[in-house]
Amino acid sequence: MLKKSIDIGMIGLGKMGGNMAQNLLSSGFPVCGFDVSDAAISKFRESGGTTRDSPAAVAADVDIMITSLPKASAVKEVYRGGDGIFQSGDPGLIVLEMSTISPDMATELAEEAATHDIDVLGAPVSGGPEESRDGTLTIMVGGRQEVFDDERTQTVLEHLGEDLYYTGDIDSGHMIKLINNVMTMGNLLLAMEAVSLGAARDIDGEVMLKVLGKSGGASNQFHKRMPRVLNRNFEAGFTIDLGKKDVGLALDTARSMDQSMITTSVVFNLFTQASRDGYGDEDISAIVKLLEE
Amino acid sequence: MLKKSIDIGMIGLGKMGGNMAQNLLSSGFPVCGFDVSDAAISKFRESGGTTRDSPAAVAADVDIMITSLPKASAVKEVYRGGDGIFQSGDPGLIVLEMSTISPDMATELAEEAATHDIDVLGAPVSGGPEESRDGTLTIMVGGRQEVFDDERTQTVLEHLGEDLYYTGDIDSGHMIKLINNVMTMGNLLLAMEAVSLGAARDIDGEVMLKVLGKSGGASNQFHKRMPRVLNRNFEAGFTIDLGKKDVGLALDTARSMDQSMITTSVVFNLFTQASRDGYGDEDISAIVKLLEE
Amino acid sequence: MLKKSIDIGMIGLGKMGGNMAQNLLSSGFPVCGFDVSDAAISKFRESGGTTRDSPAAVAADVDIMITSLPKASAVKEVYRGGDGIFQSGDPGLIVLEMSTISPDMATELAEEAATHDIDVLGAPVSGGPEESRDGTLTIMVGGRQEVFDDERTQTVLEHLGEDLYYTGDIDSGHMIKLINNVMTMGNLLLAMEAVSLGAARDIDGEVMLKVLGKSGGASNQFHKRMPRVLNRNFEAGFTIDLGKKDVGLALDTARSMDQSMITTSVVFNLFTQASRDGYGDEDISAIVKLLEE
Amino acid sequence: MLKKSIDIGMIGLGKMGGNMAQNLLSSGFPVCGFDVSDAAISKFRESGGTTRDSPAAVAADVDIMITSLPKASAVKEVYRGGDGIFQSGDPGLIVLEMSTISPDMATELAEEAATHDIDVLGAPVSGGPEESRDGTLTIMVGGRQEVFDDERTQTVLEHLGEDLYYTGDIDSGHMIKLINNVMTMGNLLLAMEAVSLGAARDIDGEVMLKVLGKSGGASNQFHKRMPRVLNRNFEAGFTIDLGKKDVGLALDTARSMDQSMITTSVVFNLFTQASRDGYGDEDISAIVKLLEE
Repeated sequence: MLKKSIDIGMIGLGKMGGNMAQNLLSSGFPVCGFDVSDAAISKFRESGGTTRDSPAAVAADVDIMITSLPKASAVKEVYRGGDGIFQSGDPGLIVLEMSTISPDMATELAEEAATHDIDVLGAPVSGGPEESRDGTLTIMVGGRQEVFDDERTQTVLEHLGEDLYYTGDIDSGHMIKLINNVMTMGNLLLAMEAVSLGAARDIDGEVMLKVLGKSGGASNQFHKRMPRVLNRNFEAGFTIDLGKKDVGLALDTARSMDQSMITTSVVFNLFTQASRDGYGDEDISAIVKLLEE
Repeated sequence: MLKKSIDIGMIGLGKMGGNMAQNLLSSGFPVCGFDVSDAAISKFRESGGTTRDSPAAVAADVDIMITSLPKASAVKEVYRGGDGIFQSGDPGLIVLEMSTISPDMATELAEEAATHDIDVLGAPVSGGPEESRDGTLTIMVGGRQEVFDDERTQTVLEHLGEDLYYTGDIDSGHMIKLINNVMTMGNLLLAMEAVSLGAARDIDGEVMLKVLGKSGGASNQFHKRMPRVLNRNFEAGFTIDLGKKDVGLALDTARSMDQSMITTSVVFNLFTQASRDGYGDEDISAIVKLLEE
Repeated sequence: MLKKSIDIGMIGLGKMGGNMAQNLLSSGFPVCGFDVSDAAISKFRESGGTTRDSPAAVAADVDIMITSLPKASAVKEVYRGGDGIFQSGDPGLIVLEMSTISPDMATELAEEAATHDIDVLGAPVSGGPEESRDGTLTIMVGGRQEVFDDERTQTVLEHLGEDLYYTGDIDSGHMIKLINNVMTMGNLLLAMEAVSLGAARDIDGEVMLKVLGKSGGASNQFHKRMPRVLNRNFEAGFTIDLGKKDVGLALDTARSMDQSMITTSVVFNLFTQASRDGYGDEDISAIVKLLEE
Repeated sequence: MLKKSIDIGMIGLGKMGGNMAQNLLSSGFPVCGFDVSDAAISKFRESGGTTRDSPAAVAADVDIMITSLPKASAVKEVYRGGDGIFQSGDPGLIVLEMSTISPDMATELAEEAATHDIDVLGAPVSGGPEESRDGTLTIMVGGRQEVFDDERTQTVLEHLGEDLYYTGDIDSGHMIKLINNVMTMGNLLLAMEAVSLGAARDIDGEVMLKVLGKSGGASNQFHKRMPRVLNRNFEAGFTIDLGKKDVGLALDTARSMDQSMITTSVVFNLFTQASRDGYGDEDISAIVKLLEE
């Protein structure tokens, strides 16, 4: 089968990248990876992956590659560093940048990549480790349409994601991800502020869940997290600290564009306060604790 | 049919009350009404309703009655005024208070009603004139359980609403309505703040609608009003001024309970600003204009 | 001396009104008072005051009178109640309303008073019990200029206050008081938010007091309350709960005028939070505790 | 005179640095300067200064030097660049960093300087071009006490400033400057929000200026800028855009310390809005226009 001949690189073999790699390997693709963690590398090798000593070495040997990294500084190093992708990627190489970085950085990386005849697509995801392993991620892809349409790109994306969206310019995928984060954290906080008023008034929580869940004020976050709040289950799905970081990234972007986001700023400050109060590692539904004090 | 023998009173024959009355009349119930507007009375009579000169006169002649009024001051007058319900309602009369008033006022009215052996239920609705006519309202009912279970109450509610909820104490229905309003206006404003950032970045609106509509940040308001925003259709479903009033009512209640609602306060101020900027009569989706300026 | 023949009425003999009365008595004026508290009445009589059974009875016997009451509801009762001023005040009676009420209420009382040929001036004060006793209050007076210029008014005001301002229309004095309250609470909160950042960074508090006290960001509140904060002396000068109430009054007024006050709303919510956290009876400088948590 | 033998370097010869240099030259000190602008260099030479081709060349020839630059990126380049101070400064060189940079950057520069045996003091100023020329700046100095006490440092600072403060650790001067900026912009915005309410109520502006200027809510900004507002004179003293930048710097610092600054965030967003509305180059008192719309 033709597709199987694609050599795929994977930089970042953690919870997200490692699981995506595993998914691709089990689909029969050869995957060549790199990570700074020995543990991550061992696990990846056990699943059948091969490894190289640097992002540059991976880039030299593959047709298409993915970066899935936890921090902006790591992304920079992987692309621009002395052993980075830009040092050795062949002309025509395609790189899917799937980390949560700012739209501005996505743009910068793609522009620099173009000077090396490398094509970068900004392709952040919605979904977690489980969806990464199962190939059921939602993927928002910005960048040149012809690169998105390239058979290599399509083959890889179809194996990784369930919902694939071509969103436009290089920064568009990461922008939409930020917008989603703002709405997620904001809708949740507002719901908690509102139901806290109800709770202070002795309105039954289950009644609120049932009635409001069918009302015009309902949101995905209300449906997903109100039951957790009622059960006092704040085990992390997505943590307060990650929520804070993501909303902060949106505010940084707004600031660089001189766009005011006053309600979102209040949301950010309350997440910061929750983090300071010691809830940073709990699920974002724990923001309710700030309002109950 | 036994139920049809129930005599129903209707105080307030406007867009909501008038349509509810029409629905009940067309189901075969005798409805006796009152309104201060001659036009509203004419229309009601044409549909087969009979009228009296005052709320007191209506109360004297019915088994169960409904109040559906536009302002708190009108509600007070209708219950407590010289020609009000409390002047003549027979012991055992049931009154469904379906206006948008504060939970505190619902409690006060019910307590005062009890001294006249009249039973008041706080029964605010979700839905508009259309749902009122079709009997497809969502109705949240607070008050004594046995009054809610009374055959007269059940008969009337079943004809008016599609989703009926018994929510607990007398103020619980109105409280849940306030909570819904806070989430509605807040989720919408946050969505507009977020997509305005995207628009300023030239992200395609239809792409945002499609992708974000399936994301964790989606909400009923996003689904319902983002298409309006993209079509620049700000014809009122629910106006900025009504939104402002309802969020203000929630803040009043929070204040009387010494509860801080900081994000909601910001939402309220931005709706106030939109009203001052001349968008008060437009649909709440017009809040986006404030962010585009 | 002619002036001394003025008969002065005083409704409200508490910390403010009682001390003003004492000041006037010690200056040789006959003062006739009323209060609902027996203790307040006893103290007032010991200082040489005479009393009546009701505000109406006081109003019947004096040339000019003062109302200094703790709550809006008490003000209403004193003017409009069955035994209120409007029941018996002679045409030409002057009433100085010195409580902290809303500008709207000042306007309403004056308009109603005019139908009785009684002249009300809105004359709120800046200063506390000590300044009331010493006659060193700052008094902002709104109302008809000729009533302000009346010899009776001038005589009384000159004994009560050090700084007297004629501010314009009837509501202008109370409006300016609200504006002052907003700036007072706001400047303080912002200073505390800013110095808390410094403190978290281990900047010496005394250095901040010295350097910032001479800087462009300094304010009366910074000068007055930063030393208290450094000494952890939160004994009440002016309490968090009073600050909350006064800012709330400004927000009510803004709301009735459809004026957005977004920063002030945030200030109000943080004072509300401080009150909930148990600091309501401490000095407003205790707002810093909210930021240190 | 011994002191006059001190060779002083000045990097940045703009409105601030150029005027400081002129002041030092007219006091008889030899000043050796650098700037990227030919115009700035010409003006400096006309005043008697000598120039070099790079910050490094200046550093090689002086006993103590000053950096006064408009942007953080320029500061980095001047210290760390290929022709920067760290390339050639002799051990024992003292550098006074007087730009508006973040406290974190001040710390980093000083730490890196120490590895070259160069002493950096963080010495931001309060005051503008006029005060720079007249030697009447307020200067807040953080860093090693013995470097502050060094005769060279004292000689230079005494000629530049009227009020000199030793504030503690290397970042303390810049921190206090940020705190001052937060209070400045915040006190001003709150005053404008409050007096806009008064203006909407037709309270006379001059009366507000007079009465509130003596009230507990007064601040330096109220005294300084309320007259401008009444005269509609928004010619820049300190611009909206600079105010926005400085408050943004404080928020960045708060964020890096995980400190919530909710009121300050609202202030920042409103300054951003004012900038977007086209008032960025006007004096910060023009923030009132946002509230009048």
